[in-house]
Amino acid sequence: MIKATSANTVRERLEAVRYASRALAITTGAERVAALEAIAVALERDSGAILSANEKDLATGRENGLAEGLLDRLTLTADRIVELSAAVREIAALVDPLGQVVRGSTLANGVRIEQVRVPFGVVGAIYEARPNVTVDIAALALRSGNAVVLRGGSAALASNTQLAATLRGAIESTGLPADCIQTIDDFGREGATELMRSRGLVDVLIPRGSARLIETVVADSTVPVIETGAGIVHVYVDADADTSMAVSVVLNAKTHRPSVCNAAETVLIHRDAVSRVLTALLDALRQAGVSVRGDAEAQGLSADVEPAAVDEWATEHLNLTLGLHIVGTLDEAIDHIAEYSTHHTESIVTNNVRNAEIFLARVDSAVVMVNASTRFTDGGVFGFGAEVGISTQKLHARGPMGVTELTSTKWLVRGDGQVRD
Amino acid sequence: MIKATSANTVRERLEAVRYASRALAITTGAERVAALEAIAVALERDSGAILSANEKDLATGRENGLAEGLLDRLTLTADRIVELSAAVREIAALVDPLGQVVRGSTLANGVRIEQVRVPFGVVGAIYEARPNVTVDIAALALRSGNAVVLRGGSAALASNTQLAATLRGAIESTGLPADCIQTIDDFGREGATELMRSRGLVDVLIPRGSARLIETVVADSTVPVIETGAGIVHVYVDADADTSMAVSVVLNAKTHRPSVCNAAETVLIHRDAVSRVLTALLDALRQAGVSVRGDAEAQGLSADVEPAAVDEWATEHLNLTLGLHIVGTLDEAIDHIAEYSTHHTESIVTNNVRNAEIFLARVDSAVVMVNASTRFTDGGVFGFGAEVGISTQKLHARGPMGVTELTSTKWLVRGDGQVRD
Repeated sequence: MIKATSANTVRERLEAVRYASRALAITTGAERVAALEAIAVALERDSGAILSANEKDLATGRENGLAEGLLDRLTLTADRIVELSAAVREIAALVDPLGQVVRGSTLANGVRIEQVRVPFGVVGAIYEARPNVTVDIAALALRSGNAVVLRGGSAALASNTQLAATLRGAIESTGLPADCIQTIDDFGREGATELMRSRGLVDVLIPRGSARLIETVVADSTVPVIETGAGIVHVYVDADADTSMAVSVVLNAKTHRPSVCNAAETVLIHRDAVSRVLTALLDALRQAGVSVRGDAEAQGLSADVEPAAVDEWATEHLNLTLGLHIVGTLDEAIDHIAEYSTHHTESIVTNNVRNAEIFLARVDSAVVMVNASTRFTDGGVFGFGAEVGISTQKLHARGPMGVTELTSTKWLVRGDGQVRD
Repeated sequence: MIKATSANTVRERLEAVRYASRALAITTGAERVAALEAIAVALERDSGAILSANEKDLATGRENGLAEGLLDRLTLTADRIVELSAAVREIAALVDPLGQVVRGSTLANGVRIEQVRVPFGVVGAIYEARPNVTVDIAALALRSGNAVVLRGGSAALASNTQLAATLRGAIESTGLPADCIQTIDDFGREGATELMRSRGLVDVLIPRGSARLIETVVADSTVPVIETGAGIVHVYVDADADTSMAVSVVLNAKTHRPSVCNAAETVLIHRDAVSRVLTALLDALRQAGVSVRGDAEAQGLSADVEPAAVDEWATEHLNLTLGLHIVGTLDEAIDHIAEYSTHHTESIVTNNVRNAEIFLARVDSAVVMVNASTRFTDGGVFGFGAEVGISTQKLHARGPMGVTELTSTKWLVRGDGQVRD
């Protein structure tokens, strides 16, 4: 077997991962669980080395004037490492997706056909300076029988180098090839470019991060890409919404964790609900520190509403700013969503069953909700253990991506010498 | 609604299709079946006009010296139109894929989540001068609730223009927007380029045709692509294969229809089966007009075996030429396939159950067979009514693509005011 240590080029390293993927694809579930257990143990054992590598990245980041939010996402602590280790054990405990029979039948001539889940082979991930993503994606890939090539942000180079060494050592200790997990961080930009051009060696590429990062990968990659996109998420308060439910759903969707993609950015309120809902809603939002920016009609209704920005409805704020738009009909709400949504998550608050079903049927987003907070769009909440990302495209995976979304299928055909007439 | 007749640019036409797709996505199955029935009737009614348009294309093709094989694929006849009409009725009779529940559960907090099948929205297809593909893809798209943008080969321009008019008139007569089916053939190359760049307007693009066409689309498209690739298809005759079964499977796989992607290109024979199988196999192949080209060992075994070309194992002949390679072990056969296969279809002929299962598990192709002809890899044979193409990639669809493969999913979430803690 080609050892990574002998890989002098990105191409050689990708070939080594491809080679390792063939061994990984035919492991039993028990072998993959054992490797994940070894990883969970190794993360805790190497905690000191991981934290000191991380401290090095943080020092460099501070020197380079990295923004506070980015430093926060880059930071590992002893507690966070224990949480990462726990997540790996959760992923190990999931039902094995491999070998599941999706469909099957016996043809008229007696030939049996069966569509079964198999790993992709090699999964590539390009992401920003969040070292926890290194562990999450590697663990989900391993659970689903995939080798993985990781390209993390350069600001996390020392952390990711140490994490990769820990992960690779752990899986090798269980008899699986270390090259099931590889990083190409040390090849800089050239590495990312070559990864995007490695069709045939890498089966799927998942970019996770800013809109700009994702756009670059979509434009430049010849490897099939699963887009995990931004969230311009809407909550629509229907004419006969329950007042307190409307307030609590909007408040939770906006304020529970404003910086993430499933947080609400725009609330749409039916004109007939305004007199009943608006005051209570604006009070609650003000108390939570939310600044509300509305259309002309909304501004006229309350001094709490500031003017909407020119590009208000197309902005993912990711902070405590919320757009407010008054609509006259359910159709108008659905049309606004069709125009501005990034097709991530939208929720209607209503007591009208017919309007609920129309909203569910006609809104074209990965997750469409009735009377629930948009914050529920999450792999952990959905029972996937963790998530690779939330797909906002329609090909292959849509919504939170867990181990099932990291599988492909193949058709197994069993005959007794049949030929085609 | 925007009418196609007012669309002066490719962009405007794609926007009109996108708009129509929203109406189509919420039709009932009965409405889509009615539209397909109307298409089947209209194809037969307009048979004369379709044939005379086709005659015009054929005359131009002959003038331009189009190859005989291409002229054959371009040709429509009254019988072929009746067959097309019958295929549309078969597709109408399929179980509706839309609304099928793929997974679902109730979370601990009482929120119900459900993953259901929905249409992509707008499907794009780029293909060569085969007017039957226009009807097949339009019908499969309509059955699965998708609007479709068709870009056929320029040599079929008159035929496709007439077919599109027939199809559009038929669906409009049932109350659905004509723009559910559109062609952009009249925009020439510029149209194809803009289609490949229309991410956001078109949800998935399916190239169907030569390796060169597919490579171009993969390289240039920002719209997600499903690759329908070439077939370097292998049959492996194992050490204890049944002799007559080996002969009949190889013969059928190679000669039943040599010009298509599921025809065999290389036969691998285990050294221990040579004395038993080779003479009978070469006799049968010779009688069927097959020219066999083998490695040095195979050449030494029979005067019937000509020398293999330098790139023999990497060549998709699509004619009555067959490569022959002798292997010493099952592993050697699997390694050869891993190196040269296009991951379409491979078959093992064996009476050894262990070897059969190893082959099924380790060969990484869309369809892997035991004791069956590779010619069975086909949407019609698999019970899909027809096929959009045969996917040789792993993302979203793998193997023959029918209506299910033209769907995405969305998550429907129903709560009672739940918010996230």
